[in-house]
Amino acid sequence: MPHLTPEQEREIDALRAESVATRRATVPALEEILYQAIPLLDHGFIRVIDYMGDDGAVVQAARVSYGRGTRHARDDAGLINYLIRHRHTTPFEMCEIKYHCKLPIFVARQWIRHRTANVNEYSARYSILDNEFYVPAPQHLAAQAADNRQGRGAVLGGAEAARVLDLLRADATRAYDDYLDLMNQDATGEVRDPGRQGLARELARMNLSLNFYTQWYWKIDLHNLLHFISLRADAHAQHEIRVYARALLETVRRWAPLTCAAFEEQRLNGAHLSASALAVVRRLLAGEAVVPETSGLGKREWRELMTLLSRLG
Amino acid sequence: MPHLTPEQEREIDALRAESVATRRATVPALEEILYQAIPLLDHGFIRVIDYMGDDGAVVQAARVSYGRGTRHARDDAGLINYLIRHRHTTPFEMCEIKYHCKLPIFVARQWIRHRTANVNEYSARYSILDNEFYVPAPQHLAAQAADNRQGRGAVLGGAEAARVLDLLRADATRAYDDYLDLMNQDATGEVRDPGRQGLARELARMNLSLNFYTQWYWKIDLHNLLHFISLRADAHAQHEIRVYARALLETVRRWAPLTCAAFEEQRLNGAHLSASALAVVRRLLAGEAVVPETSGLGKREWRELMTLLSRLG
Amino acid sequence: MPHLTPEQEREIDALRAESVATRRATVPALEEILYQAIPLLDHGFIRVIDYMGDDGAVVQAARVSYGRGTRHARDDAGLINYLIRHRHTTPFEMCEIKYHCKLPIFVARQWIRHRTANVNEYSARYSILDNEFYVPAPQHLAAQAADNRQGRGAVLGGAEAARVLDLLRADATRAYDDYLDLMNQDATGEVRDPGRQGLARELARMNLSLNFYTQWYWKIDLHNLLHFISLRADAHAQHEIRVYARALLETVRRWAPLTCAAFEEQRLNGAHLSASALAVVRRLLAGEAVVPETSGLGKREWRELMTLLSRLG
Amino acid sequence: MPHLTPEQEREIDALRAESVATRRATVPALEEILYQAIPLLDHGFIRVIDYMGDDGAVVQAARVSYGRGTRHARDDAGLINYLIRHRHTTPFEMCEIKYHCKLPIFVARQWIRHRTANVNEYSARYSILDNEFYVPAPQHLAAQAADNRQGRGAVLGGAEAARVLDLLRADATRAYDDYLDLMNQDATGEVRDPGRQGLARELARMNLSLNFYTQWYWKIDLHNLLHFISLRADAHAQHEIRVYARALLETVRRWAPLTCAAFEEQRLNGAHLSASALAVVRRLLAGEAVVPETSGLGKREWRELMTLLSRLG
Repeated sequence: MPHLTPEQEREIDALRAESVATRRATVPALEEILYQAIPLLDHGFIRVIDYMGDDGAVVQAARVSYGRGTRHARDDAGLINYLIRHRHTTPFEMCEIKYHCKLPIFVARQWIRHRTANVNEYSARYSILDNEFYVPAPQHLAAQAADNRQGRGAVLGGAEAARVLDLLRADATRAYDDYLDLMNQDATGEVRDPGRQGLARELARMNLSLNFYTQWYWKIDLHNLLHFISLRADAHAQHEIRVYARALLETVRRWAPLTCAAFEEQRLNGAHLSASALAVVRRLLAGEAVVPETSGLGKREWRELMTLLSRLG
Repeated sequence: MPHLTPEQEREIDALRAESVATRRATVPALEEILYQAIPLLDHGFIRVIDYMGDDGAVVQAARVSYGRGTRHARDDAGLINYLIRHRHTTPFEMCEIKYHCKLPIFVARQWIRHRTANVNEYSARYSILDNEFYVPAPQHLAAQAADNRQGRGAVLGGAEAARVLDLLRADATRAYDDYLDLMNQDATGEVRDPGRQGLARELARMNLSLNFYTQWYWKIDLHNLLHFISLRADAHAQHEIRVYARALLETVRRWAPLTCAAFEEQRLNGAHLSASALAVVRRLLAGEAVVPETSGLGKREWRELMTLLSRLG
Repeated sequence: MPHLTPEQEREIDALRAESVATRRATVPALEEILYQAIPLLDHGFIRVIDYMGDDGAVVQAARVSYGRGTRHARDDAGLINYLIRHRHTTPFEMCEIKYHCKLPIFVARQWIRHRTANVNEYSARYSILDNEFYVPAPQHLAAQAADNRQGRGAVLGGAEAARVLDLLRADATRAYDDYLDLMNQDATGEVRDPGRQGLARELARMNLSLNFYTQWYWKIDLHNLLHFISLRADAHAQHEIRVYARALLETVRRWAPLTCAAFEEQRLNGAHLSASALAVVRRLLAGEAVVPETSGLGKREWRELMTLLSRLG
Repeated sequence: MPHLTPEQEREIDALRAESVATRRATVPALEEILYQAIPLLDHGFIRVIDYMGDDGAVVQAARVSYGRGTRHARDDAGLINYLIRHRHTTPFEMCEIKYHCKLPIFVARQWIRHRTANVNEYSARYSILDNEFYVPAPQHLAAQAADNRQGRGAVLGGAEAARVLDLLRADATRAYDDYLDLMNQDATGEVRDPGRQGLARELARMNLSLNFYTQWYWKIDLHNLLHFISLRADAHAQHEIRVYARALLETVRRWAPLTCAAFEEQRLNGAHLSASALAVVRRLLAGEAVVPETSGLGKREWRELMTLLSRLG
């Protein structure tokens, strides 16, 4: 099933064909993909709809200068790196971006927990949801991890995987059929049986399952977007939201490349060490043979520290 | 089915039996119901878990005085009324309350849009959800309103209502059964078939429908709580969340009675008139016979104004 | 003294001379004044630095449609009016604007209380503040209102006004001279007396008075901007911040004219009536002669209601 | 000059003498200092006015359990440490605390930048400010640091220090005298010269300098309080606000000792390493002799890393 209808694609093409003059800071690399849907999962996407500011706006805010910031990329990169390293976050709040996202409801429920953003969601009180639901690709049908209540374990084998996929598809299909039946409407809103009234939309929607797709406009500033990405692109995040977080990161790379590079260097690929972990590192550097029992760390923290220190560059 | 398990009731009783000394502002009328579940819908509830401040704290903040505020209830009531009337909202932010709520997921999705609150939700990534789903009472099985895309119309008749209830129950029951089947577990987490791995919890949950109950801790300040109530106890809100909003209002009545009275007088039972509506009122008071065509109002606003002006006191 | 230095004016001219192509929603009426300083008070200003979205973006968010919203201005106006009337605020959060503001510190202290905005302020820890302080124009030298602790009364007469202006100027001038003296620097950062060390900037600044000008970048969404304006353009707000709020309103008029018109009609020139005030209006419309004593209103609320009802259209 | 007037001390004593019964979670170690002023700088203080929750509430929220959380301190400490280490911040938002703070205006201006708190400040539009201003103790009269625009350098010597103190005192004294003169009132609000009107309070206040004390009620949740402390107790923060941040930390130690310990271990005394810094550590551990030129770090980051790694445990 396609991610966009032909009508939606025509509308996007029409928007992309228009171009007007502006005095605002403009980012050609982002303009290039403006309005375009980046397909994610089986029916989802994100699209950049609008943006304000760029790396220069971060620099400008940091300097509270009158112009658009110095044009010397080297200085700007150094300043931006410094700002991220020392947690001077407010200059990054001076840039804003707006996305149109289509995502499964259970992903939307995690996503919405980030409160420092603006959201307008498609309303199933007013409108009928499309018959689109998420079914994981076979390679993402993970079993429950045995040693960790949160994570995923091995991928399910062929027979069990097939059974799981059958169940998910069958239940979602039935849920949608009955959703329409409850409303006594078809997916375009046409009444089916004139002899029945049909349940109100705001009630019928409760029959849909959490893998159905919803969509929203989502607007956020650059600082909070990076914070969202740092939490949701993390290895501990659920695969389905991580897919979105990584796609968001790629749009940041186009939009504010200096900020994106500093963020990856300082935050995404950096690590926070506790006081005890720092002490262990110091002892190791001094040539001491530290073992878990003398490290002052819990088992889990010890394991995480060792992984971190042995990771290839 | 009961709203609480016997074990939960015992825990609540134990908490309620304890009492310790404090120097903090304390509200006996709220202490009376502390921890108790107020049943809502078929399996939901709210419980007040903790609170900070009272009407006196509002007054104290308004005066930035050193004491707990004047003890003259009359002055306090006047001041609180004045603060609400003139939108001086910050003193009401000085009071905080924490609830434990159990609510259908589709209600939770509306609720969470209020961003100025703190939330900890039961996680279906870690834990197995209970087999509890919302089915409307027959008198709330409303048809779609013919003249208004959002609202509800007449209540469904007997046969159609029965069919709707059957569908909702059957689909939710099957969704839950298959949820357990996908995980290869029973509701207590016991493995069913040792020959299968079972799908990860974070994936299996997507098979549940939006009428299943979730629960969370929800903490909010008094100002933002009143704002939530004013939007969600409103006639335009969906019945299922209105039930919760009204229960919240009753807890405010116990907690901060002066604030609650002023809020109902000024906001909940007051009304906002546009410039044109005010002009109509002035012309009517001057004895002019205003008709919709000469009112300067749209049809819908005219109708709402006439309803407002003719409402019995 | 001019509001901008010649260097700043040159930089603004250079920015205004540049124009590039964009696919984003663009507002020619706002582009027209982009970067330009709108002078306020004796040395202050606001400048629009950047913006995202327009009336169409509000409509688009309300419809969560794929295009830029319908092009029928009449429908859009009606929808926007409806959204404001029914407090559907999230679509207005989809537009964002950024200002550069120069304002007295005591105004900045009121302004910053609005928390739903992004701010980068000129830092007197790092830099030396300019020798610019606010002195009210003679017609704004108000006496304390006798009947109202907050408001202003009559304008001070000639001799007393002259004395006030002399005092304000003399004290600010001395404060600035001693600020430089404490740092042992001149206003450009040159050391004055090589034999002295000079106090750290972050300490020396404490000698400046609250009428000195500061400046910041301030970024806010359209909904919260309108909320700011409704509070700060209000008759109860202090004159000095009202001047800024009104200038902000004029920029909204250029940026989102439909939203601005609906806001003025519904909010700025509308009024909120309490339950008791509504009851009085109903009794008056029924021909009853209501007097303060039988109105159920406090003296102040009665007076305000009578003023409201007798105001000319 | 004392930090509190005798009348304020009597009111505090009266509040502390009262004790009532509550079913809420209560923290004896915090009750012990409830309402008491902790003196800071020359005239400032903080006082804990109210609180909600404790370490147990954090645990409870993390488990969304029905009771007050497990009573096994060891488990709780481990869970709290885990939550802080993995940035699970929402459970800490379930605790709330309210302070009464008296602080110089220039400190208040830094403080207020933290937006996720509730504030009610003493209003100089309505009331007359007291004649209290901050003058640094001689050991804090720092010169501007030569190598760092933000920081402080050496302490000023005797003669220069004396001159600075004289200037600060003389200017603040004159500012206050003229503040009263402008209003034609004394500090208690009595009119001085019946023949003059006096300038409105909201205008006269602009003559006061930034070292005058203001006061406010400040309410914040535990997560955001720790974030405030981590930024403002930091070595890069200005001494005057650091004094407050450290006093806040001491109240957290009483209130939520497990959280406080985990916060100090994980955040306050931990450190964040960038990807390149981690690579350097790995190379050092592998026995490689890394020098600044081959480190891939900027000069400043290299210096900071070396300091960190050589710091004594």
